[in-house]
Amino acid sequence: MSGTGVIVCKAAVAYAAGQPLVVEDIQVEPPRAGEVRVKLVACALCHTDAYTLSGSDPEGLFPSILGHEGGGIVESVGEGVTSVVPGDHVIPLYTPECKDCMFCKSPKTNLCVKIRSTQGKGLMPDETTRYKNMKGEPLFHFMGCSCFSQYIVCAEISVAKINPKADLSIACLLGCGVTTGIGAALNTAGVEQGSSCAVFGLGAVGLAVIYGCKMAGAKKIFAVDINPAKFEIAKKFGATDCINPKDYPDKPIQQVITGLSESGFGIDYTFEAIGRVETMRSALECAHRGWGKSVIIGVAGSGQEISTRPFQLVTGRQWLGTAFGGYKSRSSVPQLVDQYMEGKIPLEDFVTDRMKLEDINKAFEKLHEGSCLRCVIDMQ
Amino acid sequence: MSGTGVIVCKAAVAYAAGQPLVVEDIQVEPPRAGEVRVKLVACALCHTDAYTLSGSDPEGLFPSILGHEGGGIVESVGEGVTSVVPGDHVIPLYTPECKDCMFCKSPKTNLCVKIRSTQGKGLMPDETTRYKNMKGEPLFHFMGCSCFSQYIVCAEISVAKINPKADLSIACLLGCGVTTGIGAALNTAGVEQGSSCAVFGLGAVGLAVIYGCKMAGAKKIFAVDINPAKFEIAKKFGATDCINPKDYPDKPIQQVITGLSESGFGIDYTFEAIGRVETMRSALECAHRGWGKSVIIGVAGSGQEISTRPFQLVTGRQWLGTAFGGYKSRSSVPQLVDQYMEGKIPLEDFVTDRMKLEDINKAFEKLHEGSCLRCVIDMQ
Repeated sequence: MSGTGVIVCKAAVAYAAGQPLVVEDIQVEPPRAGEVRVKLVACALCHTDAYTLSGSDPEGLFPSILGHEGGGIVESVGEGVTSVVPGDHVIPLYTPECKDCMFCKSPKTNLCVKIRSTQGKGLMPDETTRYKNMKGEPLFHFMGCSCFSQYIVCAEISVAKINPKADLSIACLLGCGVTTGIGAALNTAGVEQGSSCAVFGLGAVGLAVIYGCKMAGAKKIFAVDINPAKFEIAKKFGATDCINPKDYPDKPIQQVITGLSESGFGIDYTFEAIGRVETMRSALECAHRGWGKSVIIGVAGSGQEISTRPFQLVTGRQWLGTAFGGYKSRSSVPQLVDQYMEGKIPLEDFVTDRMKLEDINKAFEKLHEGSCLRCVIDMQ
Repeated sequence: MSGTGVIVCKAAVAYAAGQPLVVEDIQVEPPRAGEVRVKLVACALCHTDAYTLSGSDPEGLFPSILGHEGGGIVESVGEGVTSVVPGDHVIPLYTPECKDCMFCKSPKTNLCVKIRSTQGKGLMPDETTRYKNMKGEPLFHFMGCSCFSQYIVCAEISVAKINPKADLSIACLLGCGVTTGIGAALNTAGVEQGSSCAVFGLGAVGLAVIYGCKMAGAKKIFAVDINPAKFEIAKKFGATDCINPKDYPDKPIQQVITGLSESGFGIDYTFEAIGRVETMRSALECAHRGWGKSVIIGVAGSGQEISTRPFQLVTGRQWLGTAFGGYKSRSSVPQLVDQYMEGKIPLEDFVTDRMKLEDINKAFEKLHEGSCLRCVIDMQ
């Protein structure tokens, strides 16, 4: 079934870096071939949205519609779309899965390349946009999702069809942060039963990493943050030990953590979920001699570089990174939703705030407060 | 059988950084408990010997006896030694294998820790030295081996008993460089059949990496060096394509190599066998998006650091290092010797020069010439 014309709906438009979003009516075109139009039910804010809005992201495009952690219902589909029909519940995916490119065909990665170049340019695969404001000015897509709109258009390969019984205002969290964190532990690092882990940064992603480590049966999980107010929830998610680097002003934190490790040689799996290159180094350097794996999850500022002495790698540490937790998106997100519904992933615990779309700028402020994990926007 | 007193023999003594070695008589004490004394038959020079002699190694100790790529025959054994007897042919191991420490017990690493601290101090495990010059001044051990002496004392866990039919003046190469290179490909990277590889640096280690990639069935093996005189032998060892970065003055070599890759997304496995942090970065950055592994083998100058943008890891590249090619030494070196004897490892092709012990300083000069891969010293 093809879309039935332009829909006028509310969206939060990012007109310029560093400026508040403007909540206004926009025009959403019908989906073209291989595309779907989705009515958004809910969308959570993620730090990547804030990063791009701030202007720090050199690839950020304006005017655009941000947002990439949403959940909705298919409204209409374009020509040739076979995997979803109107009424299906879906989660938009900033990492698509075409199941056809060399990356999708490899079991080693989830980084589908099919629509990467146009997605990076804020466009649909045919190099055009489906969004316009009421003046007729085109608005860029964002991460292939643009979830801060009541209706969005995505590529068919950029939506995961999920169990319609799942509460979309909670399941939407599986569109980015929680999936990324759990997957970093389970897929990228491959945390093993009985192992030790250290997680730098106790935002939603870091807490999801902790939960992933717990799921994998880790024995020791160190939670590291300079805000001790986070420690209680870290323990709730599975942390066994909490460390505030500010308590050790005279010693690099990697030395502190290595000293606290059972063997004295470091931690089996370490994770950086902040986005600071200094902490990325600390995480690597407290990884275990001989086999420690350190996974970069956080997004560093533009142009920043990680560094270390090569000896750290020669003595057996491995430096890795992850995007969307290594999960092949269309295949895995439905399974994760099922796990959530079976009570195996405590998604509700990540939702600390809820707001209406018109208050979205307040939600961005909230995101920077220590107590906020995820603020979910009610899109309708 | 215990050692029968002090042996006076010739050795090349490194009295000070940057000074020529002094070939003179020294005194070698008998092996103590858990130690063996070995009559050296041959020893090859490795760049690590030259690095320490140059004074660039901040942990270099003087006066000492360098050398760590040797082969010899057990002369006597200390109390409690059970795994070798006088007459056994052995290769000294700078990476020991105690089979008892947490590292030896793990299948993930070869970095035995049993005698690491004393070895790093140039001493035997009881914190003393077995070497003195004829004035009675103690001489430090080097890398647990000190192969530039006609007789040496090693820990029992630092010698591998090999097939006595192997020519020690060739098999000695398995004490460091060739094993390191082959293992970097087979163990650390885990090169797969049909994959692509790039090797930076065409010294003995780099050529051994190429050979390891070939053994693993790699389809494309790029050999990278600024000295095109190396390309012929690189092809002999298995390189399919040779690249001189000087031919591309206007483009970072990682971009050149990525552009030459079959997919356009990089090379499956890359290796740095030079010791330059800039090339380590290049090797990482031409590794394949999504799954490329880059292995650091070369030893960088003191205090130097590797760096890159974290995005390189987040998009799926893995940064690794290797020591002794990841081989558990006592278990693996005898097997490698057998493979050499079965014609599966062309060790002879690495031996480009042979010299007498008294000419060892000439051998160091030779090592810096482009045409020298390994110069083997006849120790007797």
